[in-house]
Amino acid sequence: MSEKKRTTIVLFSGDYDKAMAAYIIANGAAAYDHEVTIFHTFWGLNALRKDEKLMIKKGFLEKVFGKMMPKGADKMGLSKMNFAGFGPKMIKNVIKKHNAMTLPQLIEMAEEQDIKLVACTMTMDLLGLKQEELLDNIEYAGVAAYLGDAEDGNVNLFI
Amino acid sequence: MSEKKRTTIVLFSGDYDKAMAAYIIANGAAAYDHEVTIFHTFWGLNALRKDEKLMIKKGFLEKVFGKMMPKGADKMGLSKMNFAGFGPKMIKNVIKKHNAMTLPQLIEMAEEQDIKLVACTMTMDLLGLKQEELLDNIEYAGVAAYLGDAEDGNVNLFI
Amino acid sequence: MSEKKRTTIVLFSGDYDKAMAAYIIANGAAAYDHEVTIFHTFWGLNALRKDEKLMIKKGFLEKVFGKMMPKGADKMGLSKMNFAGFGPKMIKNVIKKHNAMTLPQLIEMAEEQDIKLVACTMTMDLLGLKQEELLDNIEYAGVAAYLGDAEDGNVNLFI
Repeated sequence: MSEKKRTTIVLFSGDYDKAMAAYIIANGAAAYDHEVTIFHTFWGLNALRKDEKLMIKKGFLEKVFGKMMPKGADKMGLSKMNFAGFGPKMIKNVIKKHNAMTLPQLIEMAEEQDIKLVACTMTMDLLGLKQEELLDNIEYAGVAAYLGDAEDGNVNLFI
Repeated sequence: MSEKKRTTIVLFSGDYDKAMAAYIIANGAAAYDHEVTIFHTFWGLNALRKDEKLMIKKGFLEKVFGKMMPKGADKMGLSKMNFAGFGPKMIKNVIKKHNAMTLPQLIEMAEEQDIKLVACTMTMDLLGLKQEELLDNIEYAGVAAYLGDAEDGNVNLFI
Repeated sequence: MSEKKRTTIVLFSGDYDKAMAAYIIANGAAAYDHEVTIFHTFWGLNALRKDEKLMIKKGFLEKVFGKMMPKGADKMGLSKMNFAGFGPKMIKNVIKKHNAMTLPQLIEMAEEQDIKLVACTMTMDLLGLKQEELLDNIEYAGVAAYLGDAEDGNVNLFI
């Protein structure tokens, strides 16, 4: 077991505000020299999507999911007060006003701090997401790898 | 303190997808030889409901809750993209297509792996749920018992 | 490191039922002699709002957030079956019927048990909440302080 403290976060949620909380905690923990893993599963995978048109062959249900789900962090909605997309604009305005970081910026910072960003392969299959659609330089794994990290974790959260 | 690793999950959510995540992590941990407890509270209790008509005397509010809440794992909705019940059908279709496990199958597997399934007695009272309505072979306990398990836990999650 | 067990909860959610779960676990842990911290962030800050009219100078967006968000624990909605505010009334009715504790009572109990109630200063800024609007005798801190508590925690939850 390493001497380093360890933080793991399961990011299940596809909400902008919840993903912000996850990445703020993760970046904080990395700054305090924790080894940090964010395991993206279900709707949390959307935070890793690229905002690009890609020609990928998919079945019907996979296409529907692909269309309906937000294409990347910047397109995600709020868990509360979403107001058909107006809420996220409000949040982004106050973020700018207070010189805080947007979600895409927090994700970039996480990459710079060598936070391990993992995409859950099982739920990628379910939602029909392909590796080409997700950010480069992330890892792909299943629940076993997550548990391997979490069982030695000091801080383990499900968000 | 036992030598075995321990995982505890508070399942608060009554959403099909969140309960799936909880049971996938729990089954994974049990396969890795963790002692696993899932403590079902509030809407998470619905995952334990039997899909049967039962004649039980209840007060008015308890009847309303009983009618409005999903009767068992198979009836639960999604936390995102529920689309008035169409979302769960889509998810169940892709689960079948990918030979993954449905929520009722995951619960059955949990029982076979001796995962401790606990129903929170205090919130059963609040929501008017009776033991006859819930799966057999589960345990009944309060927050004290949960904390007893969690304080020695390696992985503790709230879902 | 102290000998005492430690429980930390990030209360992100602004839902009455989720906040109840957080405060029930927190009060239980304190009764079992844990050191307990509840770190209120994003919508969870609303649990700490006073139900008073205050004259505070705010920008436009801050005013909108202030108006739209519930003013204190008693005004919060349910995560499920909210029914435009009827759900919380049902829950409060069954709480009374079963002699259980309402959320404001649980918060009072937490204060009496010396649970550390912390408001996240960064998200206070984002949502435009001022110290005058929140309960007295709480602490103000950022993610670093939370991590300091959580990294020695036995039970760390995100709710």
